[in-house]
Amino acid sequence: MGAALALGRRGLGRTWPNPAVGCVLVRDGRILARARTADGGRPHAETQALTRTDARGATAYVTLEPCAHEGATPSCAAELTKAGIARAVIACRDPDPRTSGEGIARLRAANIPVTEGIRRAEAEADLAGYLLSRTRGRPRVTLKLAASLDGRIATASGESRWITAPPARRLVHALRARHDAVMVGAGTARTDDPLLTVRDIGHDRQPVRVVLSRRLDLPFPSALTATLDAAPLWLCHGPEATEEARARWSSDPRVHLLECATEGRQLSPAAVLSALGTAGLTSVFCEGGGSLAASLLEAGLVDELVCFTAGTALGAEGTPMIGALGLDSLAAAPRFTLHETRAIGPDVLHVWRRLPLFSG
Amino acid sequence: MGAALALGRRGLGRTWPNPAVGCVLVRDGRILARARTADGGRPHAETQALTRTDARGATAYVTLEPCAHEGATPSCAAELTKAGIARAVIACRDPDPRTSGEGIARLRAANIPVTEGIRRAEAEADLAGYLLSRTRGRPRVTLKLAASLDGRIATASGESRWITAPPARRLVHALRARHDAVMVGAGTARTDDPLLTVRDIGHDRQPVRVVLSRRLDLPFPSALTATLDAAPLWLCHGPEATEEARARWSSDPRVHLLECATEGRQLSPAAVLSALGTAGLTSVFCEGGGSLAASLLEAGLVDELVCFTAGTALGAEGTPMIGALGLDSLAAAPRFTLHETRAIGPDVLHVWRRLPLFSG
Ligand SMILES: NC(=O)c1ccc[n+]([C@@H]2O[C@H](COP(=O)([O-])OP(=O)(O)OC[C@H]3O[C@@H](n4cnc5c(N)ncnc54)[C@H](OP(=O)(O)O)[C@@H]3O)[C@@H](O)[C@H]2O)c1
Ligand SMILES: NC(=O)c1ccc[n+]([C@@H]2O[C@H](COP(=O)([O-])OP(=O)(O)OC[C@H]3O[C@@H](n4cnc5c(N)ncnc54)[C@H](OP(=O)(O)O)[C@@H]3O)[C@@H](O)[C@H]2O)c1
Repeated sequence: MGAALALGRRGLGRTWPNPAVGCVLVRDGRILARARTADGGRPHAETQALTRTDARGATAYVTLEPCAHEGATPSCAAELTKAGIARAVIACRDPDPRTSGEGIARLRAANIPVTEGIRRAEAEADLAGYLLSRTRGRPRVTLKLAASLDGRIATASGESRWITAPPARRLVHALRARHDAVMVGAGTARTDDPLLTVRDIGHDRQPVRVVLSRRLDLPFPSALTATLDAAPLWLCHGPEATEEARARWSSDPRVHLLECATEGRQLSPAAVLSALGTAGLTSVFCEGGGSLAASLLEAGLVDELVCFTAGTALGAEGTPMIGALGLDSLAAAPRFTLHETRAIGPDVLHVWRRLPLFSG
Repeated sequence: MGAALALGRRGLGRTWPNPAVGCVLVRDGRILARARTADGGRPHAETQALTRTDARGATAYVTLEPCAHEGATPSCAAELTKAGIARAVIACRDPDPRTSGEGIARLRAANIPVTEGIRRAEAEADLAGYLLSRTRGRPRVTLKLAASLDGRIATASGESRWITAPPARRLVHALRARHDAVMVGAGTARTDDPLLTVRDIGHDRQPVRVVLSRRLDLPFPSALTATLDAAPLWLCHGPEATEEARARWSSDPRVHLLECATEGRQLSPAAVLSALGTAGLTSVFCEGGGSLAASLLEAGLVDELVCFTAGTALGAEGTPMIGALGLDSLAAAPRFTLHETRAIGPDVLHVWRRLPLFSG
């Protein structure tokens, strides 16, 4: 199962709207074949592994319950049965209503013994994006925060580049690559004119770039529009975006507009995530800025925090890493559980999770 | 030398104004005696180790150069010579002008071979407080910062208790015990009415408690005055403190007043530390608040930062952990080098140092 989990992880960010599943076929202690869900989500891991070997009598280790729904192609449960596997070991169930327990039931109905729950916690953490999208209709949200020791992202004069060092910045690119999308607020798009692509780590697949702006008030042209051939751009806007603004942005077929409900004077974070989930995204890497980070935290929609702390202090006049949260009390503050802390170059990396990420 | 360093470390916070030195006497691969500087600074480590054994022909491992100055008692260099040791191994030199190189010279003059510099970096880090007090006339300053992920120490409504969990708070008590003094600004004394004593870790020696207040504008009675029998209280004030305020505070012989120069509308942090150094302190553990932390950082007087980060966010309306720093640019920000990061209970501990702590 360890090998299957590792395989599945390699597919993260590449298989949406489908889950990044790993499958290993074993017989007599020998690995016959291994596969993960293909880029774009098809073929599924099981189908691919089965094409690579004669699986008769083998044990199939799969990180997620094999699907039970037939479409253009037969279900994975049917394919595994047809291939004559002797046994299936499954890490966690698929909550998709078309499969939920049905994949396992079909295998058992075909007299294939099934063991489930092996390394479930790991599988659920890896697949949390897919699981959340099926159960709550929204992608998993990772929020990146990079700041000084005292939680500042810029000096009073607005200087903010390179608070953290190259190793942290390289990890950010690797994290972008492991998510289906990278997301920022319009403030960051307006101030920084960012690219939001994965660079310098030899990666071949770009995540979707998502920007939130109620009235589509974004610079045009920009670094984002100049790189539309490299990576998709999705703009979340409110009902109040003018026809003119919508027309200008939608004139380019490589830009995708998503209308979302507003809440007060901003887009509703829940509505935005629900729209992104409906569009197929299972994981979103939010890189700020402070206002969007605050909205997501306030709405309880952050699943993981990836924090980088640099060994410097900028003082209370500096720009805060997180905007106002409107908390009434300490007890109302969002709470996270430490997942990992380590040095990354000269900086500290600390990763926190909302737990449980997924409760099935 | 490892054993001598470990012994010396046990004396930290207990031997001021003298350094916490460790000494181990070894002959034929067997340890004959070991000692550290006694509580209060006398007898020295070497003297104590020598009273415990016949050191003829032994190698003496000492973390700091043995003193060369005779007072009521002979110098350690003289005592080691008289005891007939065969060899001395010394981690680092003592910059005290009465010793500096002279302790080693006297041993060599008595035909005792001396090896110096063994594990010097560690000894210099452990003894940095003493070394700084001898070379710069000020104690080593450790600044403790405990805050939320976004660098806040209280909500907008002022709630601040228990942002970090018991393991972090226990470590704070252990750190207090390893320093000669605990220091806070008057704001903390006025708002929190703190005890600033070492509690619940079975410690028998209390650090000095130092509070900074220009006009001695501090609550009386208070938790600090109620516990004067347990731990000393030193108040740093400016020339502008009234005779009346001075008289009230100095009426209790257990309170020690130190007049320090002011700088703008606050006490000069350099003047305060110099007064504390002159009074014999070699290390100070500053526990805030945000204004005092900012003053010390701005003046470049922080040697070590001990940071605790809790897995919660309080938002931009919360109280900042560090006050305004008045930085002109990112390049002017104080920079620290990561020494350690690890989980401590549910929180993150990260320790940063100004490097080099001491350059001899
Ligand atoms: N160090 C770092 O890691 C880092 C990372 C990112 C950004 N930054 C810095 O942060 C600054 C930008 O931060 P910011 O806080 O001003 O802007 P931001 O969070 O990037 O964007 C805020 C804007 O997004 C739009 N928005 C729509 N719905 C929203 C919602 N629910 N919540 C929040 N925003 C919503 C609004 O613009 P519309 O009115 O157009 O809807 C809003 O003004 C820049 O200076 C950038 O350099 C630093
Ligand atoms: N979470 C934590 O770890 C933690 C730790 C400590 C404090 N706190 C909180 O922090 C708050 C107090 O912080 P604060 O920033 O208001 O006060 P502070 O830093 O504790 O004290 C500031 C006061 O100290 C005096 N002072 C004298 N010389 C100074 C200098 N060079 N620099 C700075 N101050 C000098 C001044 O009072 P005079 O006018 O009397 O001279 C000044 O108003 C409290 O609410 C407390 O609960 C939290």
